Amino acid sequence: MAKNNLVTPRTLAGFMELLPREQLAFERMRRALEDVYRLYGFYPLDTQVLEYSEILFAKAGGETEKQVYRFTKGDTDLAMRFDLTVPLAKYVAKNAGELTFPFRRYQIGKVYRGERAQKGRFREFYQSDIDIIGDGSLSIENDAEIPAIIYSLFKRLGLENFTIRVNNRKILSGFYDVLGLKDQAENIMRTVDKIEKIGEQKVRAELTETFGVSDEAARKITSFIALRGSNNEIIAALRSMAGENELFLTGIEELETVCRAIVAFGVPETNFRIDLSIARGLDYYTGTVYETTFNKHPEIGSVCSGGRYDNLAGFYTDRQLPGVGISIGLTRLFYILNEMDYLNRDADAPADVLVLPMTEDFEAAIRTAAALREAGIRTQIYTEKKKFKAKIGYADKLGIPFALFLGEDEINAGTVTVKNMTTGEQTTAPLSDLISGILAEIRKFDALTVIKTAETNA
Amino acid sequence: MAKNNLVTPRTLAGFMELLPREQLAFERMRRALEDVYRLYGFYPLDTQVLEYSEILFAKAGGETEKQVYRFTKGDTDLAMRFDLTVPLAKYVAKNAGELTFPFRRYQIGKVYRGERAQKGRFREFYQSDIDIIGDGSLSIENDAEIPAIIYSLFKRLGLENFTIRVNNRKILSGFYDVLGLKDQAENIMRTVDKIEKIGEQKVRAELTETFGVSDEAARKITSFIALRGSNNEIIAALRSMAGENELFLTGIEELETVCRAIVAFGVPETNFRIDLSIARGLDYYTGTVYETTFNKHPEIGSVCSGGRYDNLAGFYTDRQLPGVGISIGLTRLFYILNEMDYLNRDADAPADVLVLPMTEDFEAAIRTAAALREAGIRTQIYTEKKKFKAKIGYADKLGIPFALFLGEDEINAGTVTVKNMTTGEQTTAPLSDLISGILAEIRKFDALTVIKTAETNA
Repeated sequence: MAKNNLVTPRTLAGFMELLPREQLAFERMRRALEDVYRLYGFYPLDTQVLEYSEILFAKAGGETEKQVYRFTKGDTDLAMRFDLTVPLAKYVAKNAGELTFPFRRYQIGKVYRGERAQKGRFREFYQSDIDIIGDGSLSIENDAEIPAIIYSLFKRLGLENFTIRVNNRKILSGFYDVLGLKDQAENIMRTVDKIEKIGEQKVRAELTETFGVSDEAARKITSFIALRGSNNEIIAALRSMAGENELFLTGIEELETVCRAIVAFGVPETNFRIDLSIARGLDYYTGTVYETTFNKHPEIGSVCSGGRYDNLAGFYTDRQLPGVGISIGLTRLFYILNEMDYLNRDADAPADVLVLPMTEDFEAAIRTAAALREAGIRTQIYTEKKKFKAKIGYADKLGIPFALFLGEDEINAGTVTVKNMTTGEQTTAPLSDLISGILAEIRKFDALTVIKTAETNA
Repeated sequence: MAKNNLVTPRTLAGFMELLPREQLAFERMRRALEDVYRLYGFYPLDTQVLEYSEILFAKAGGETEKQVYRFTKGDTDLAMRFDLTVPLAKYVAKNAGELTFPFRRYQIGKVYRGERAQKGRFREFYQSDIDIIGDGSLSIENDAEIPAIIYSLFKRLGLENFTIRVNNRKILSGFYDVLGLKDQAENIMRTVDKIEKIGEQKVRAELTETFGVSDEAARKITSFIALRGSNNEIIAALRSMAGENELFLTGIEELETVCRAIVAFGVPETNFRIDLSIARGLDYYTGTVYETTFNKHPEIGSVCSGGRYDNLAGFYTDRQLPGVGISIGLTRLFYILNEMDYLNRDADAPADVLVLPMTEDFEAAIRTAAALREAGIRTQIYTEKKKFKAKIGYADKLGIPFALFLGEDEINAGTVTVKNMTTGEQTTAPLSDLISGILAEIRKFDALTVIKTAETNA
């Protein structure tokens, strides 16, 4: 090959590339998510990255379609998935006869959107979705379990100061109905959804100017969604204004049931609250809706959103498949936590022990490494011909907590010398005497949460 | 939406789509791989699915390039990765300044090849790669660790009857050199590599007819590669014919060191052997090469192959980056094991316990589910309004090993009733008394290997 003809190695803009220690932190995060989803009895699912364009665009349009990576190969019109919901809809519609309902699945997978590249925005990114799909019907308790899962998840990651905000679109629709704005409900919800971004004034202006809502109604709307108080107080306030609108009443009923069940699932009231301003600007949702925010970082917006929908797969099947789900933009969340230096960097070593042979013959060292691995200890053996300083520097750079030396003396005595790289403490003893001590230290690292649980907690 | 205008849900040919229980088995397999790679101190890596075509095709050509999913978006010429090696080369060349060498990474990821669709061939499939990359040099002991990892991995999966075949291309090159066929070495190796597929006769014919090798040399070649015996016997036989060729001698030296170290790493001689017919028909490999076969299923061919290469990233950087690695075609392996019914189907329930509330109010049942999860037990709660038979049928269909009933009597007595779905045995007691028994049963399922370790073992 022509050395003077090198191709510059580069990565596409908007495609996240992590260094090894960051990648390890990401993998810890991903595994924590998987562990929690499993604890709640979800099946894993892994749909294809490529689909027929006809399938992906059965519903989509507008912005989404423009961003998609779409191309033909041979005669086939293909596209890369832009979310995990459409592929789920296809999967459930296609395999409904083989599935047992309610069907609970999680999927952590990459999706693709060719958006304008900018800091913190990704064109290839992981979504982490859970959904519970019913056949014909799905009980309201499922709407309470979803936030319980998110609570468990965030706690497991090491987060404390977050709030899962819950609302019910039926309450909003019923309320707009009462105001005589039924036909405008979608437009109003989409506008109101922007209140945290653009403020109350602009929302009111948009309602009156763009959608012809009266000043009085606009004021009622913004004061309604600003209703604050404990969950019980808000429910009581809603009941007091309920009147006769059936949709409104059903919404209150559902929200109350959901809130009671969320508490039963073990979520403290400090981590969830009713927020009537949440609407999720998608006509897809029909009942309960969620958003999740960091108390100390409202500027980030929702890191985890979703809700209840009446029909998952209406474009593919006549079968009525209601469901409830929630989605985390994992790549974005990781990027934010990393940027803010909230990731716990004390647990991102790729090994627990580095074995350093100090003799020409490596056999004893190799056997020692094998014995460590047999005991479940993540082990590397350093076999490069380097000076001692370079060898120990390798353990240092990788953050490996223990170095194990094996010289002639140790081999003859049937011992090893283990150095705790943090304390500098060195112990010489038979390997079998040291293993439980090493395992105990490792468990401390394993117990570290992905995110630092400090005062500065997000 | 127009109900009469449904899009038929379908999946692209050559794209694997698993039902939930199969997917769970696949995920168990993937996790077992990850666990073993971690035990050996490898970093995870997750490169992008999309790359600049210029990057992916720095080397490729011919068949590979034709199969690739390549397209333009805006002005950018993009392609989906067709293996995990080229992206690794790009990553290491790009980030060499930030990496610590030797750099050990694993990657389990999807790759794309638009091959002709046929049974057992996939266009989207997982590869599971490990590589150890040195900076300038990399010690030969690494060549022994790779098969040790594969051995650990296959054992962990539950496999017994497999053979990791090891060879060294320097021995082959040196041998052809001695025969005066140095310039033909690549062609010869590529031909000889097909011996298990097309047989000795056809290999000899191709050598003489296509490449002008003399009858005598062709016979010498086929009898050389057919050399059998214990590893020590083969090394001894090679030594006896070594003569003066330096490459040949170096190859023997390396192979002997590698075999000795493989044993030290704990691999029994029943699971690996020298096989001089292994060449890996790629000019990429320069020393040790591996293939792995199932003893009882030679027809499958190698399920795990790789070797030592002198230079990983010569197309992107002047930096010399030697390495050694191995790759498993995970989707194909899973497909084969599934087709042969070798997968252990006793551990593919998505939950350990199904909580069945028998009262109108679900609060006690929800609290029970939360307590089970708190104890690390994977739990579902069934809240649909269905007949008892449908509820218990749900546990049955999903293979959930325990059903937990909670009726008025239990709630008033502070107990729960747990039914072991396998034995039919039912126990009523306070939940706290039952948890350790449930956990003990679960551990039995957790201990089940991914592959059945029966006589019929592959």
